[in-house]
Amino acid sequence: MTKTLLLLSGDGIGPEVTAQSERIVAALDAGIVTSTARFGGAGIDADGVPLTDAVLAEAKAADAVLMGAVGGPQWSGQPYDKRPEAGLLALRAGMNVYANLRPARCFASLADASSLKRELVEGLDILFVRELTGGVYFGNPRGIEDLGGGERRGVNTHSYTSGEIRRVARVAFELAAGRSGRVCSAEKSNVMEAGLLWREEVQALRDAEYPHVELSHMLADNTAMQLVKYPKQFDIILTDNLFGDILSDEAAMLTGSLGLLPSAAIGEAGTPGLYEPIHGSAPDIAGQGVANPCASILSLAMALRYSLGRPDLATRVEAAVEAALDAGARTRDLGGTLGTADMGDAILARL
Amino acid sequence: MTKTLLLLSGDGIGPEVTAQSERIVAALDAGIVTSTARFGGAGIDADGVPLTDAVLAEAKAADAVLMGAVGGPQWSGQPYDKRPEAGLLALRAGMNVYANLRPARCFASLADASSLKRELVEGLDILFVRELTGGVYFGNPRGIEDLGGGERRGVNTHSYTSGEIRRVARVAFELAAGRSGRVCSAEKSNVMEAGLLWREEVQALRDAEYPHVELSHMLADNTAMQLVKYPKQFDIILTDNLFGDILSDEAAMLTGSLGLLPSAAIGEAGTPGLYEPIHGSAPDIAGQGVANPCASILSLAMALRYSLGRPDLATRVEAAVEAALDAGARTRDLGGTLGTADMGDAILARL
Ligand SMILES: CC(C)[C@H](C(=O)O)[C@@H](O)C(=O)O
Ligand SMILES: CC(C)[C@H](C(=O)O)[C@@H](O)C(=O)O
Repeated sequence: MTKTLLLLSGDGIGPEVTAQSERIVAALDAGIVTSTARFGGAGIDADGVPLTDAVLAEAKAADAVLMGAVGGPQWSGQPYDKRPEAGLLALRAGMNVYANLRPARCFASLADASSLKRELVEGLDILFVRELTGGVYFGNPRGIEDLGGGERRGVNTHSYTSGEIRRVARVAFELAAGRSGRVCSAEKSNVMEAGLLWREEVQALRDAEYPHVELSHMLADNTAMQLVKYPKQFDIILTDNLFGDILSDEAAMLTGSLGLLPSAAIGEAGTPGLYEPIHGSAPDIAGQGVANPCASILSLAMALRYSLGRPDLATRVEAAVEAALDAGARTRDLGGTLGTADMGDAILARL
Repeated sequence: MTKTLLLLSGDGIGPEVTAQSERIVAALDAGIVTSTARFGGAGIDADGVPLTDAVLAEAKAADAVLMGAVGGPQWSGQPYDKRPEAGLLALRAGMNVYANLRPARCFASLADASSLKRELVEGLDILFVRELTGGVYFGNPRGIEDLGGGERRGVNTHSYTSGEIRRVARVAFELAAGRSGRVCSAEKSNVMEAGLLWREEVQALRDAEYPHVELSHMLADNTAMQLVKYPKQFDIILTDNLFGDILSDEAAMLTGSLGLLPSAAIGEAGTPGLYEPIHGSAPDIAGQGVANPCASILSLAMALRYSLGRPDLATRVEAAVEAALDAGARTRDLGGTLGTADMGDAILARL
């Protein structure tokens, strides 16, 4: 059966790394039809907005969407609601992909690249389940208000309903079954009522439907510390949009190989997922053919697993990336000399 | 001239570590008069609330307040606005100590205790300037609302005015003069308008009044990564209440010696400051006489510097702590065997 994958390669190094994922799709020869559309800064340049209604409709009609990266200094003068990032937030909300899966895995052959002592990160394998379509990113009222006399007030609203919390917690609990069965939920319930609601709803769902999951709760500031102290204590970390943004980036950097880390954003069963590397558009190296395509290719693997019904191919792609790394294939960010396409070659050769 | 220091030793290990600071005050024989009052869980037990109006009035009338720690499992059933933490927030707001100084310094003799490779943390000396009386900690509306049908909604409001941003930024810029002259301001201006206002106001104040300060801006998620990747790139990090909570705890753990780190919260000139260790009440080891008193003693040093008009004594106390550590004095958290009072002895002997 044919499946469709929409490529939104976006800005900076986005097109270069996405091109390598496209080569992998072609090589898999699995009846996956790709199409492309403009998004982010590229969308602004062509259409005046980062995400047109037509592109959002295409995304919702596809089986999966693979994004590259968005943003760059040339669009910093855009009005707030027309920046590349606003397009990304509108895409996440429009596709209703409320659960963001962000693995922070340390690749054996790269453990020495971490800032942390090798024994603390070797074998590290944390999965963040980050809420992605709520919280302070989307709450109203928001904006900057003029108070007169040169004074202004900036406001954002952090808000979650029980339903929003339960649906993302469910994703974490379901995934826990295929892992160690442990979930740690991070919030600031000691200073935020919305964090207290988060904690109560997560606990109630666990008690009612997932009694075999070992659930713990940790304050977000302590989580930031524990990630540095002893990261292997964690398996799944469940958290809201803002804490998830910060803590998952911290954890990603612990692995020492940011250029390798993929992410998936999923919603209700049967709806398309959104897949993207966690790295940014890296304007400083864009267009030079030196960016690491591994995170994009591993994001494609996540798409194969969660949206395209081919977990077998996902495992094959992941194994090819790991084999290439084990064989010493290294782009510049990993201290090597391979270009983007060379790294693509090295992975294709092991597929 | 006599100065007054109010001791709010609080809960858990708070009283034990504060007692050692009291010994230091006595040994300095510098005309500093101490008094004590109930606070936190201890306040709840005695008075039904964590902070009475009378204690707040005492705090505001003192020259400085030295806090121990608050909280513990026995008060987890308290109503939200009567928890020990609520008392701490009320104390910060009531004293109007809007600028929280949190040094993340790596002590030479303890660099190996860090999770990070020695060369990344040796000599590390970051100073966080965290806004402490605004943002999502204090914004309204807030609370948990019943939506009916088993659904609830939790809301908190993140809000800052220009004035609130400028006054804490000024503290960072003033402190920069005595350090490297570099300030990095962290926010999420790419998704939060309040973060954009933060960024604009900080930049405007720098341009108008502190042209010699080298100011940079960094997204909070990237800051969380850069702290792990190469922490020595930072000197002063200026940030809001919530990001400051998380990022300063992450940075503290990088040093490997959480039990050593003090903090100061200051407001307008001539008003008392609030000083506290960044560690918590550690209920698991409370009452055993094994807690590390260094963070409390170094908080006392900050009080001597910023509120009690004795920077000379601050330097003397800090040198005594460093000398004790250099001589190998170690409490249990640092892998040693000294008790709380033994560590106090080791520091007193070097005063
Ligand atoms: C680009 C930005 C809007 C985004 C976010 O904050 O969610 C990014 O940091 C991420 O984590 O995917
Ligand atoms: C205890 C808690 C309310 C407090 C905070 O979140 O500010 C603590 O984490 C701190 O950083 O001093």
